[in-house]
Amino acid sequence: MKLLSFVHQGRETWGAVVGDGVVDLGKARPQHASLADYIASGEYTQAAQHVEGLPVVAKLADIRFLPVIPRSEKIICAVRNYMDHHQEVLAAGMQRELSEQPPIFLRVWRSQCGHNEPIVRPHVSESLDWEGELAVIIGKGGRNIAEADAFDHVAGYACYNDGSVREWQFHAKQIASGKNFESTGGFGPWMVTADEIEPGRPLKLETRLNGEVVQSSHTGHMIFSIPKLINYASTIFTLTPGDVIATGTPAGVGWSKKPPRFMKPGDVCEVEIEGIGVLRNPIVQQA
Amino acid sequence: MKLLSFVHQGRETWGAVVGDGVVDLGKARPQHASLADYIASGEYTQAAQHVEGLPVVAKLADIRFLPVIPRSEKIICAVRNYMDHHQEVLAAGMQRELSEQPPIFLRVWRSQCGHNEPIVRPHVSESLDWEGELAVIIGKGGRNIAEADAFDHVAGYACYNDGSVREWQFHAKQIASGKNFESTGGFGPWMVTADEIEPGRPLKLETRLNGEVVQSSHTGHMIFSIPKLINYASTIFTLTPGDVIATGTPAGVGWSKKPPRFMKPGDVCEVEIEGIGVLRNPIVQQA
Repeated sequence: MKLLSFVHQGRETWGAVVGDGVVDLGKARPQHASLADYIASGEYTQAAQHVEGLPVVAKLADIRFLPVIPRSEKIICAVRNYMDHHQEVLAAGMQRELSEQPPIFLRVWRSQCGHNEPIVRPHVSESLDWEGELAVIIGKGGRNIAEADAFDHVAGYACYNDGSVREWQFHAKQIASGKNFESTGGFGPWMVTADEIEPGRPLKLETRLNGEVVQSSHTGHMIFSIPKLINYASTIFTLTPGDVIATGTPAGVGWSKKPPRFMKPGDVCEVEIEGIGVLRNPIVQQA
Repeated sequence: MKLLSFVHQGRETWGAVVGDGVVDLGKARPQHASLADYIASGEYTQAAQHVEGLPVVAKLADIRFLPVIPRSEKIICAVRNYMDHHQEVLAAGMQRELSEQPPIFLRVWRSQCGHNEPIVRPHVSESLDWEGELAVIIGKGGRNIAEADAFDHVAGYACYNDGSVREWQFHAKQIASGKNFESTGGFGPWMVTADEIEPGRPLKLETRLNGEVVQSSHTGHMIFSIPKLINYASTIFTLTPGDVIATGTPAGVGWSKKPPRFMKPGDVCEVEIEGIGVLRNPIVQQA
């Protein structure tokens, strides 16, 4: 199933994709205030039954997509998690060592936007870069989750564009500032429930700028696997349903290109992941 | 006024300190679900009138303190923001440059605990360190806040202990992992409203471990001022009422001592800031 959050008739709701339209599970199941609540209840695994008999309320083309989980409690992002990206970083002259443990940083939910919604280039820098990534959405919360059990805690997967303002990312060794500009992180269009993706299967990942392929890799190049990331993060804090782990980006980011290349107003950036879909975001200038 | 969040008769609420007790503003003003909501309404500036005639429901000694704002949307932390701390870091053999812009990282609210509540040393490391800090609580939200206007956006101030698991902090250049272990960040005991603290006045800050002074400095040693931190953070994202900015720690952290010194179960750590109060946390081992 494909589950998503969206705005319908001016109201924030959530639901499922059926054909080229959406059903409004938020209206049909008011006991769950949000997709995160539905996930927390565990009932999302019966989503196929829950959509039966419900009307398609709108075409996908006509809704406003929200980030899959609009206000995750935590958005945990892996950095330097693809061997091919690590190699391009070294080739670009940056001094970096591989860590023995996953390097992570946090995004805030305000830094995200839904499918088709604009990624906003801020006033203060023109160095807005793409990072196509696989996002993992946590289903069952927990702490100290063993790697062997990690996939039991995954509700589903989505595309993520970990939009990065490079100049601000490099203000200091802490990259959080460049990674948190409002509406720079695309997250969508929906989540595909975990039952449809064989655990650990390498998925093709492609990022396109105005139709041109700029990243082409697969999730098998991850340095730290999804179970390792879940184990590591849950050693630090309790994971909760709806938490997001953005698993890092492969080779092909703009600032490693010669000359560096960035997203500018009028561009369209797409992240496509095999078995999940295409996340598309136009770029606009901050108003 | 001193405003706080606490548990009374098993119910999470918020209120104000009157003498050696608390009044339950959460009960008296149910239109505000939390202290953050009360701050967002702007009515907190009339807190002195709002407590008039209300009964003291409990002694301070008898309540369970929650973090001043239990679930802030954002907790923005400055790192390397005291010149005396920067110098001790260099003396400890770390290579670090001062940044031209404030280095920041994010904490999640789950990493915090209230006054008198235990700071939890995790299973995975014995390198749990203290960092006494001044916390700024945002009153009026906004984006792109000018330095000249910044203090208009401050609701109040509290003590913060930015508890840090050093080994995990140094797993990678990104320090978020060591800074986010559950219940490692003391935040309290209350916030003193901004009308009681002259903007920018240097405040004495002292951290004590089992009564022994381990940090003794004042907020005048900050490298990036509170207005600069607010300006910088609000350039990235919209600040909202109840957001927290932890402004960095002065010299005297445990790992810079020779030999390094850490907090262990049975210890008590206190952070005292002039004009605000004393935040006290016992240290316990993760269960």
